[in-house]
Amino acid sequence: MRRLIILTEGFTEPIAAKTASNVLRYRPHEVVALLDGAHRGQTAQQLLGVGGSTPVVARLDEAPQANTLLIGVAFAAGRLPARWRQVILQAVGLGLDVVSGMHHFLADDPEIASLAASSGSRLFDVRRNDEREVASGRAMRENCLRVHTVGQDCCVGKMVVALELSQALVAQGHDAKFVATGQTGIIVEGDGCPIDCVVSDFVSGAAERLVLANQRRDILLIEGQGAISHPRYSAVTLGLLHGCAPHAMILCYEAGRTAVIGMPHIPLQPLGMLRKIYEMMAGLVCPSRVIGVAVNSRRLSDAQATAERERVRNELGLPVCDVLRDGASELTNAVLRMRSARQSFISSSAS
Amino acid sequence: MRRLIILTEGFTEPIAAKTASNVLRYRPHEVVALLDGAHRGQTAQQLLGVGGSTPVVARLDEAPQANTLLIGVAFAAGRLPARWRQVILQAVGLGLDVVSGMHHFLADDPEIASLAASSGSRLFDVRRNDEREVASGRAMRENCLRVHTVGQDCCVGKMVVALELSQALVAQGHDAKFVATGQTGIIVEGDGCPIDCVVSDFVSGAAERLVLANQRRDILLIEGQGAISHPRYSAVTLGLLHGCAPHAMILCYEAGRTAVIGMPHIPLQPLGMLRKIYEMMAGLVCPSRVIGVAVNSRRLSDAQATAERERVRNELGLPVCDVLRDGASELTNAVLRMRSARQSFISSSAS
Repeated sequence: MRRLIILTEGFTEPIAAKTASNVLRYRPHEVVALLDGAHRGQTAQQLLGVGGSTPVVARLDEAPQANTLLIGVAFAAGRLPARWRQVILQAVGLGLDVVSGMHHFLADDPEIASLAASSGSRLFDVRRNDEREVASGRAMRENCLRVHTVGQDCCVGKMVVALELSQALVAQGHDAKFVATGQTGIIVEGDGCPIDCVVSDFVSGAAERLVLANQRRDILLIEGQGAISHPRYSAVTLGLLHGCAPHAMILCYEAGRTAVIGMPHIPLQPLGMLRKIYEMMAGLVCPSRVIGVAVNSRRLSDAQATAERERVRNELGLPVCDVLRDGASELTNAVLRMRSARQSFISSSAS
Repeated sequence: MRRLIILTEGFTEPIAAKTASNVLRYRPHEVVALLDGAHRGQTAQQLLGVGGSTPVVARLDEAPQANTLLIGVAFAAGRLPARWRQVILQAVGLGLDVVSGMHHFLADDPEIASLAASSGSRLFDVRRNDEREVASGRAMRENCLRVHTVGQDCCVGKMVVALELSQALVAQGHDAKFVATGQTGIIVEGDGCPIDCVVSDFVSGAAERLVLANQRRDILLIEGQGAISHPRYSAVTLGLLHGCAPHAMILCYEAGRTAVIGMPHIPLQPLGMLRKIYEMMAGLVCPSRVIGVAVNSRRLSDAQATAERERVRNELGLPVCDVLRDGASELTNAVLRMRSARQSFISSSAS
């Protein structure tokens, strides 16, 4: 049983520390503390809006029951910040395991790896993969409905939406599964593929294999990555979209955001345009449509959120909800309608 | 000075051996022989339609003047065929250098690397890269015109078109450069970035850096990869498109091809639709338009090629030519018109 202390030093806020936030949300029983000296004595709830009374500590020895250090921040580039290296070395020196979703692989870092070899720490690089197969384009199981969360931008909640929909469908008795495609999702779900760290020639192949491995299920909720209009990550988004070949998509966005996150000079594309682009681009491989919108309304009041939901519902003529604020039922209903329609179509084709 | 023997064993035909064909076309003075036991005694010209009297030999010792073995085939997956391994080991044992564009890195292969260490062979893995930066989205030099070759499919001639246009523009006295993005282009040009082997998070960043490194030139002809509708490689295509942010695109296709190469059950998208898709997707980052079409008419007679060119010219209302059959002038003129128009626009904006 892992007991996690989550390193968020210098980045304990909801967007940067999204790995931390979502592990607190979905694996709360595993989390002992957050590590951020600047916020010692506060709680995860105060800083991240999730995690309840989980304490923020300044040093590893303030959470002696922890047996694993989790890197709680996803950096855009591949490097390890210098001040983080010291904390990791300290943890490894104490014999803690380390779980990391960084592009900088800890096991390939000679200093960290050698210290781990002597202390007995295990290093888990969640993004490491050896995907080396192109997509086959082979037929997928017709009775497995593939639903994919796609976004207007990074960090809008595509993973949360896929997870919440999956959990809600399972709670209703459906055979649904969350298919993780990013490091946080993999840490939460325990399996998946870190698609943004796959060599670009093999992105669609890796996504296809992930679907094929899970297609015995009735409904897959496949976590999206990046955005098809994102100047940095569109390669990841499109390769994943074509590899997982969804029947249906949920378009995710954050209310109030106007520019690409981290690139304030680049305006976001309108939802209506993105809906058309996603449908057209997905359709190059498999007919697909956007069946609902997931709004992340974390920065809105209840009244503002209701108004925003109504506005987008009217604009796009689609179900809209914030799965954390409103529950997922409006979107699970859309998924189940899609499943019924497809089942009727498959039956009529077969007869 | 490298003197190449090119390994094409079992694959000495134009599409599979496209690395061999294009090194023969653009670096003929470096090539000593092709290695393919099944075709011993024939010439490169007979088998590949290029390379003149370059002989095909069955064994390394039949080309004793060679000092470098070049892997002349680009395999889709990452593995090294067993029978090729023997030839590579033999070459390394003889002290030849080896140049490879495979995803399987020779220097990471313990048996090959250890033999090379003792024989003094150098192993050049052209696809190896350490790209670890996301795109910055920073402004590029306005007076550098970025032209990108994009395709209906793989293996239609995107590299050849970019190279031929670049050479023709240089011959006319323009400051143009071919920007290589694939292993063959890098081998021919001597620089570039193997974009399809970059980790997907960093594809656009790598493409952007490649443009920034060359933007002192007046005109860049940036080699395209894959196709935006390709079920295997669309990630590479879109990441490159967004990273290099072209002002203009040349749409490349092979006449007579109806299905995705290697995936006969997947029909190609029509050129008119691809034109719209490429313009729309490129436009998410930088306004761009298709300014011409490059047809690869290798399987047509002269009369058929003329008819095909006329048909597409009428259908799309764009300049169309086969750069190898017709020369590149129709497309270089389109590039130069685009450059004049942009220069006027930049001058008028500045004044």
